[in-house]
Amino acid sequence: MNPVSIYPVPGLPEISRGAALERLIVDGLTRRGLSLEAGDVVVVTQKIVSKAEGRTRSLGDVQPSARATEIGHRIGFDPRHVEVILGESVRVVREAPHVLITETRHGFVCANAGVDRSNTGGQELVVLLPEHPDESAGRLRDGLKEITGAMVGVVISDSFGRPWREGQVNVAIGAAGVMALRDYRGDHDPAGYQLQGTELGVVDELASAAELVMGKLDRVPVALIRGAQVAGEGTVRSLLRNPATDLFR
Amino acid sequence: MNPVSIYPVPGLPEISRGAALERLIVDGLTRRGLSLEAGDVVVVTQKIVSKAEGRTRSLGDVQPSARATEIGHRIGFDPRHVEVILGESVRVVREAPHVLITETRHGFVCANAGVDRSNTGGQELVVLLPEHPDESAGRLRDGLKEITGAMVGVVISDSFGRPWREGQVNVAIGAAGVMALRDYRGDHDPAGYQLQGTELGVVDELASAAELVMGKLDRVPVALIRGAQVAGEGTVRSLLRNPATDLFR
Repeated sequence: MNPVSIYPVPGLPEISRGAALERLIVDGLTRRGLSLEAGDVVVVTQKIVSKAEGRTRSLGDVQPSARATEIGHRIGFDPRHVEVILGESVRVVREAPHVLITETRHGFVCANAGVDRSNTGGQELVVLLPEHPDESAGRLRDGLKEITGAMVGVVISDSFGRPWREGQVNVAIGAAGVMALRDYRGDHDPAGYQLQGTELGVVDELASAAELVMGKLDRVPVALIRGAQVAGEGTVRSLLRNPATDLFR
Repeated sequence: MNPVSIYPVPGLPEISRGAALERLIVDGLTRRGLSLEAGDVVVVTQKIVSKAEGRTRSLGDVQPSARATEIGHRIGFDPRHVEVILGESVRVVREAPHVLITETRHGFVCANAGVDRSNTGGQELVVLLPEHPDESAGRLRDGLKEITGAMVGVVISDSFGRPWREGQVNVAIGAAGVMALRDYRGDHDPAGYQLQGTELGVVDELASAAELVMGKLDRVPVALIRGAQVAGEGTVRSLLRNPATDLFR
């Protein structure tokens, strides 16, 4: 069994709308002396995908609704930020001082609908999640294939908080060319006992692994994971639990 | 920046009570041609730690209480299994058919209090979580230091489900010699905006990364992570959210 290796890919330029991310990623890999191989997984932070897709808003252009203003005052958020968050959400899941957890149009349950005010090149700008992250990942995979000839997996990652534990962890918000779940149900352990309930969220584990070389301020928006046996056709959409059977919504 | 490498360490024998895990881990590494270096992180699955600590129960010896019998019949679980789960728990968080989510004595919120019936060397045995996982990790770290001279980090991992997404992911239940959280609060992004709420649960990301080489049936109970800059003095206990401020309990 071979090791899994995770390479940081730093040095990408500031990303603006329309940037050819696949070209910038390949250039970044080349500077590191790396070339893509079949089975590699490229993990890309949400922020640069969103910026390349123009998913930013200037808060100066946002007119908060009465509801956004009310929530903003109640929890201590800029009402314009709340307005953008509500626009990305189908409902509010939890509200508390300085906390606004919503269910996004994609079905993610996360803080602020993933609308991020930090590290955007200016305090008045916010960055939204990509509209269709699985499709964004698919386009990146196709673009990387076109440039390099290699069929790789692509994971778009973001850091989400979680119940019960402090600290955010990187999870996948979009994927292409990788499995989402690794399924052990129906397999038997060496003692003959059928394993139950053991599907592993591999695509999220890839995102978490990548974070180990990314950091938050290190300007490492891309990581290459080599040696993981995770090729597949999963999507993050398929990983989202049916709200009707979810015990924590 | 160097890559992070994750090496699977297979081939450990079946673990029984009193096994010298640190010796078996070093032997496993040696067979792979690996020797521990300062800053390495050894990730060990909960199951072998629990077995070495004798944290198993034979269901034949368990007399279910009336409450365990009632819950077992209601959700379709063996009442003896429920009895053991309740004994490890301070309260039931959610109950549904084939689902029993409790808060353990450690403060973990997880399915079945982590009491696992699969893959135990016999259907009638269950494996409980270690009583004090951070301390178990500390003893392993000390034992590895004694044998190899290297000051490494140790993470004890288990796979937990999570709300909102299908699939379990590996998380840390005990740790020594590594940071638990990587703290970016108070730092400023390149545009001068102060980062908010950005603590990353690095110890859980280490556990998730290790799972990429472990699998469930592959009998890879140990992984070595090399090159992550995560030395520290964190514990998993310190990562658990205060129940009083938890929005999902």
